[in-house]
Amino acid sequence: PPGRKVLIVYAHQEPKSLNGSLKRVAVEELSKQGCSVTVSDLYAMHFEPRATRNDIVDCLHNSDEFNYGVETWEAYKRGCLSNDLIEEQKKVQEADLLIFQFPLYWFSMPAIMKGWMDRVLLQGFAHEFPNCYDSGLLKNKLALFSFTTGGSKEMYAKGGINGDIRCLLWPMQHGIMHFCGVKVLAPHICFAPEYVSEEKRKEMLIAWAQRLKTLWKEEPINCSPEWYFK
Amino acid sequence: PPGRKVLIVYAHQEPKSLNGSLKRVAVEELSKQGCSVTVSDLYAMHFEPRATRNDIVDCLHNSDEFNYGVETWEAYKRGCLSNDLIEEQKKVQEADLLIFQFPLYWFSMPAIMKGWMDRVLLQGFAHEFPNCYDSGLLKNKLALFSFTTGGSKEMYAKGGINGDIRCLLWPMQHGIMHFCGVKVLAPHICFAPEYVSEEKRKEMLIAWAQRLKTLWKEEPINCSPEWYFK
Repeated sequence: PPGRKVLIVYAHQEPKSLNGSLKRVAVEELSKQGCSVTVSDLYAMHFEPRATRNDIVDCLHNSDEFNYGVETWEAYKRGCLSNDLIEEQKKVQEADLLIFQFPLYWFSMPAIMKGWMDRVLLQGFAHEFPNCYDSGLLKNKLALFSFTTGGSKEMYAKGGINGDIRCLLWPMQHGIMHFCGVKVLAPHICFAPEYVSEEKRKEMLIAWAQRLKTLWKEEPINCSPEWYFK
Repeated sequence: PPGRKVLIVYAHQEPKSLNGSLKRVAVEELSKQGCSVTVSDLYAMHFEPRATRNDIVDCLHNSDEFNYGVETWEAYKRGCLSNDLIEEQKKVQEADLLIFQFPLYWFSMPAIMKGWMDRVLLQGFAHEFPNCYDSGLLKNKLALFSFTTGGSKEMYAKGGINGDIRCLLWPMQHGIMHFCGVKVLAPHICFAPEYVSEEKRKEMLIAWAQRLKTLWKEEPINCSPEWYFK
């Protein structure tokens, strides 16, 4: 709806890929709805995935023994995080909905996107004990994981060789998003686009556009072990 | 035992950290046993976590539409992967045991280590359909995930706020190692070292050294859904 803000965190090297098309479809459809859409195109930004001392621009709290979690927490409070992190945190802060668009790498997100999670969702900004899970600091936001797989739907079924795909969503949806207080919409999964026809891939794009039309009416999943491991 | 080769893939920024000490303890104990031990110290190496076109040193198979999986598979066969990947693959190839030593970041490994998985364990080298899982190309090797957590053992118990810690091991142990044919030893977990006494942390180091003394007699876990989600 008009006025809603969406951040798409996108990790694919190739604009012509299905992931690239899915990202474009989302920008188009959500813009058409009157949403304001921002894209963090991680490869194009050469986004830094490594959590290092460079993320703190001034002196360290304890330079004798570097502790990334403590140092970034302290730097956040002093306003001394590196600019790329401040920029990403601003985008997250403003967003009502976060869409993560990526190809599944090793039952998880590509390292460049994991680095975005590691470096952006810092203590003080996204959580601050005991403000985690339902009282996480990013509550009142929504997240949606939209990704492509190499394996087929059958391989990712319960009893299939890769096991139920929901099992691998636990660390991303519960361990990251829910931990920060973000409510999680059902994932959007395109199975094995490399092994289907061009026509099937077009149907995948249409299905995504269709889903986005009524996305704001969706209820979040019940992000508890039962959803993942039943 | 004499002659066995071990690769420790290590991801911590601070040598004085508990992770740094756990790594040193492993090098010492395994060397004492006569093993030959190699360490990939990812932060010290400034290891590149991003999967990009730079990983292929010559022309692309299809420069019109970049596909990382296809391009690195082809480049592997031509011997045209970047040097840092060839080096890491050599270390893996020679190793009987892979130890991953890291602090848990967001229910998973730090991005720099995820990048090692994404870029080193390529098709052609670590798996090549249908050679995956029990017939993966790295069969006859062992892997062990050794990590520290922020949360306590109680928080990572079944019914605890973070859920059973075994659930988050599924993508790493099954989705990566088992997929490549590697047999998985039980994980070694040091819970919440930042919140315990110096004496407790010393006990953690002693316990790790003790375990390593009889490590080669251990049986791998049964890496199936029952182990993770029972």
